[in-house]
Amino acid sequence: MPKLAYLGPEATFTEEALRILAPHAEGLPSANVSAALDAARRGEADGAVVPLENSLEGGISSTLDELAWGEPLLITAELLLPVQFSLLTRTEMPLSDVKRVYTHPAAITQCRGFVAREMPDAVVVPAPSTAAAAQEVADPGSPYDAAIAARIAGERYGLVELASGVGDRSDTVTRFIRLSRPGRLPEPTGSDCTSLVAFLTDDHPGALLEMLTEFSVRGVNLTRIESRPTGDGIGRYFFHFDLEGHVAEARVGEAVSGLRRICADVRFLGSYPRADGVAPRIKRGTADDDFAEAAGWLSRIRSGRP
Amino acid sequence: MPKLAYLGPEATFTEEALRILAPHAEGLPSANVSAALDAARRGEADGAVVPLENSLEGGISSTLDELAWGEPLLITAELLLPVQFSLLTRTEMPLSDVKRVYTHPAAITQCRGFVAREMPDAVVVPAPSTAAAAQEVADPGSPYDAAIAARIAGERYGLVELASGVGDRSDTVTRFIRLSRPGRLPEPTGSDCTSLVAFLTDDHPGALLEMLTEFSVRGVNLTRIESRPTGDGIGRYFFHFDLEGHVAEARVGEAVSGLRRICADVRFLGSYPRADGVAPRIKRGTADDDFAEAAGWLSRIRSGRP
Amino acid sequence: MPKLAYLGPEATFTEEALRILAPHAEGLPSANVSAALDAARRGEADGAVVPLENSLEGGISSTLDELAWGEPLLITAELLLPVQFSLLTRTEMPLSDVKRVYTHPAAITQCRGFVAREMPDAVVVPAPSTAAAAQEVADPGSPYDAAIAARIAGERYGLVELASGVGDRSDTVTRFIRLSRPGRLPEPTGSDCTSLVAFLTDDHPGALLEMLTEFSVRGVNLTRIESRPTGDGIGRYFFHFDLEGHVAEARVGEAVSGLRRICADVRFLGSYPRADGVAPRIKRGTADDDFAEAAGWLSRIRSGRP
Amino acid sequence: MPKLAYLGPEATFTEEALRILAPHAEGLPSANVSAALDAARRGEADGAVVPLENSLEGGISSTLDELAWGEPLLITAELLLPVQFSLLTRTEMPLSDVKRVYTHPAAITQCRGFVAREMPDAVVVPAPSTAAAAQEVADPGSPYDAAIAARIAGERYGLVELASGVGDRSDTVTRFIRLSRPGRLPEPTGSDCTSLVAFLTDDHPGALLEMLTEFSVRGVNLTRIESRPTGDGIGRYFFHFDLEGHVAEARVGEAVSGLRRICADVRFLGSYPRADGVAPRIKRGTADDDFAEAAGWLSRIRSGRP
Repeated sequence: MPKLAYLGPEATFTEEALRILAPHAEGLPSANVSAALDAARRGEADGAVVPLENSLEGGISSTLDELAWGEPLLITAELLLPVQFSLLTRTEMPLSDVKRVYTHPAAITQCRGFVAREMPDAVVVPAPSTAAAAQEVADPGSPYDAAIAARIAGERYGLVELASGVGDRSDTVTRFIRLSRPGRLPEPTGSDCTSLVAFLTDDHPGALLEMLTEFSVRGVNLTRIESRPTGDGIGRYFFHFDLEGHVAEARVGEAVSGLRRICADVRFLGSYPRADGVAPRIKRGTADDDFAEAAGWLSRIRSGRP
Repeated sequence: MPKLAYLGPEATFTEEALRILAPHAEGLPSANVSAALDAARRGEADGAVVPLENSLEGGISSTLDELAWGEPLLITAELLLPVQFSLLTRTEMPLSDVKRVYTHPAAITQCRGFVAREMPDAVVVPAPSTAAAAQEVADPGSPYDAAIAARIAGERYGLVELASGVGDRSDTVTRFIRLSRPGRLPEPTGSDCTSLVAFLTDDHPGALLEMLTEFSVRGVNLTRIESRPTGDGIGRYFFHFDLEGHVAEARVGEAVSGLRRICADVRFLGSYPRADGVAPRIKRGTADDDFAEAAGWLSRIRSGRP
Repeated sequence: MPKLAYLGPEATFTEEALRILAPHAEGLPSANVSAALDAARRGEADGAVVPLENSLEGGISSTLDELAWGEPLLITAELLLPVQFSLLTRTEMPLSDVKRVYTHPAAITQCRGFVAREMPDAVVVPAPSTAAAAQEVADPGSPYDAAIAARIAGERYGLVELASGVGDRSDTVTRFIRLSRPGRLPEPTGSDCTSLVAFLTDDHPGALLEMLTEFSVRGVNLTRIESRPTGDGIGRYFFHFDLEGHVAEARVGEAVSGLRRICADVRFLGSYPRADGVAPRIKRGTADDDFAEAAGWLSRIRSGRP
Repeated sequence: MPKLAYLGPEATFTEEALRILAPHAEGLPSANVSAALDAARRGEADGAVVPLENSLEGGISSTLDELAWGEPLLITAELLLPVQFSLLTRTEMPLSDVKRVYTHPAAITQCRGFVAREMPDAVVVPAPSTAAAAQEVADPGSPYDAAIAARIAGERYGLVELASGVGDRSDTVTRFIRLSRPGRLPEPTGSDCTSLVAFLTDDHPGALLEMLTEFSVRGVNLTRIESRPTGDGIGRYFFHFDLEGHVAEARVGEAVSGLRRICADVRFLGSYPRADGVAPRIKRGTADDDFAEAAGWLSRIRSGRP
């Protein structure tokens, strides 16, 4: 039974993701993203599950920066998990009695409309995690009346679900990834994603355009780009890219090699099956067969055969 | 004396930025970025000062999303402010006695190394803002021993500066912007920045490359790109762009018009002097004179004159 | 009745083109392309008709260079004329008796297969024009047995058509243009062509790519590109371009202005109805309405209106 | 001693080129470009020397089309030969007595200014070659008074050089190529040229831009582009390209393979030393070492090593 570290405490959305990605794994809750990844790096766990981005909040900076700067890990799977928030209290009570709410800052943002509409007088206080908020609220001595968290947190800590679906959008989705120490890549499935981090050699105008051209000229589509500061002052960025396809495919391999040649550094984060199962449209001339035919032709003309 | 809303409470880094950007302004502290901008929108303030990005943490999501989705405001100035964190306590004490630290999550990240090295046993708890942390710690009944915040917060709340420069990097910079209700733009200075938000018509492969080409073909350099989720599910993004130059310049005007034609929507966020005073390199054929000459020529050939 | 100079002598394919392009015009045969164009320039004729390119032989260098370097003229119409060659003799005779054939070098190339197959022993001698060849052969003292020329040349000079359709391809087409002194352009028809000549500022790598990008970024399709030497040594070229659309259209106007800004010189050769009547596909965001909307928007944002 | 076919007759500029390119070769004069190349193809000669382009007249269509459509041959060397025209007569005579001049059509164009200025009343008649013109004029029964040809033609046929340097430009240069049957390529020298012919899959808008991008993205500079009609009607072209570098170099190999993948057909015409000895500027990231490093990296990441 594999052991997987995850962004804890227990009863967070990340644990839910872990249960779906690896139903038979033993979960190792970690205090934060860095701790979860470190557990995987040091071998205390066989891997880790952490959030990568949220359809409302965007990229999770701590995950993005850990993947870019920390000891290398490989993404081996992804999951798109709809996120449903519940309002949880120790006892049944009218909404109007809820005066102090405790929850994670991301949930504060995502439930702002509900709070403004249904509990305009409530004060919402940021918590380290939604599960920590639930645990705190379960304590009879807590100064908070309610937590906003996942339903499973309520079940775990014996709370009442005063309201469910309190997020402003019913369709918020969080993308989770499973990480392993470097090793054999998942096999190509025909519907894969490749994740990369690219650092510019120098921040010249047009550098981003050049990087994108390395992809487009080989017919490789970009599905995500995220700029992050390098830490060396305003105006210096590096980039996270998600590409359609698996690095074992010729067009992806040539594109990332091209990126490598023009960048100061490129870190490969993994090729893994897409959660949505969508197969990329392969542009004319960019299938593996086309690359193989052209390679054979190049070999012939280099030896002077027509 | 203009009144400017800012991301409060008092004694935050944003108040410091406000004092530099508008020394004679009256400050109106606001609970969060949205509240500060709303005060400017509703006329309770003449404008607002908020952070836009940090050289370590990246873009401030709440500011980016407010600028994109909220009632339109114009950026009229920017400031790059070095950020210095201090460890503040109610009374002088040895570092080893500090067990519980309170500060904003961004500061937790930026001071992680100091805490791990100097106070390995301390627990760090997230606060709504660094100034709120300082205020809380000033309360003799506070469960926290120390706050990490700006020095001016310590002065305001009568705290002892146990250590200064506790950030992991000495050169962290935050970029602040001043916003006003729509109106006359700042005059071009020869060293300006133009900020935009662009929404794709449909999220086709190559859309980003097309957008960047609209800039590059007119010799307009991109200094920042930030993708943000549209909220419509993973894989749907819109983009914040910062460009070199003022929209009153011909090359910038034509480029943003080109962007407008290929996008579902483009929101202009302002043209304003660059804080660093750097003048862009004007590529051959893209100065205002070149555009004027070409426009005259086009007018002649359209009427059949050689 | 307009008077039009054309590449003579009488009975050439160009006269045929003239009769179709301007049925009621008086034709003024000229010794060569330069002479025809000079007649138009000096006012001896109201215009000129000359060949521009042939589907088998390519561009007519003398026309291309005259348009680029000579006193400016405007193309006002084009015609695609199928070219049919006949073998013409003074008297009826067996093919095997034809020993010396006289014709224009272009016809030598285009009838090579027929000659090799049907008259393998015949010598083919280059003539200044196909009509001149017919005229010469009509002379009983001529050293030539046959001419290859247009059927109308045979009719004009009383020759026998020994064989028709002797070109190697039945579908050879020549493109003729009608030229006028600079003046009012033909009105846009929705199916137009714009012709240009562009001279590079300096022959830097990537200059051609930059020129093509000026077109593509405005959705303007290129239908012909022809490089010609500048005369300043091997490796120095200028370019003839044919574009879809009329210079009065916004996307064409902006594209050619962009070309003008990055080139040492651009000479506009005219916008005129396409002979094939094909309407261009207008890419999203590049119709005149799109340009007008974007111009209005630019004007609003420049004055600070949202 | 190798035997090389060339565009004859003897005493043409091509023979001069042959003498320089292969001083010890036996020359085999041929009636035209096709005949010279056929001699090489059939083994009657070991190779051929023909003109490829002229700095005043442009590409030699017959050579371009033979290389594209005929049985494949490889270019193994090139030569840039200054072309000097002389006015040659049987006997010494005043210029004003020269009434009928015989020469090749290219020379007619190149000497137009001299003729107009010095012999305004002379009639100039096209000849199959400049050497044929000289040979004809050497015949006492010739109807022509003078030939315009290379000085060596005058020497060969015993003519008087009435005037030298009668070309309108003193710096006209013709580029000659030496061709061989397919076989081992010349070794890379660091200053090489690669010649190609590319046929489009379908003539979609933007096809040319895509082809040029295959070159530019690998830092391969284009030194010549020549469009030629495919013969399938006006508006259908194929392209001759000359590139900087040798196909044995990684960046050229990958670029031509990319071209191959997106084109209906690519014909490789050879990689050979540049006559001007100019070494290309290698763009950052496109040297052979850069490709080798990136290939090693790709291999590592594909097997999951960081």
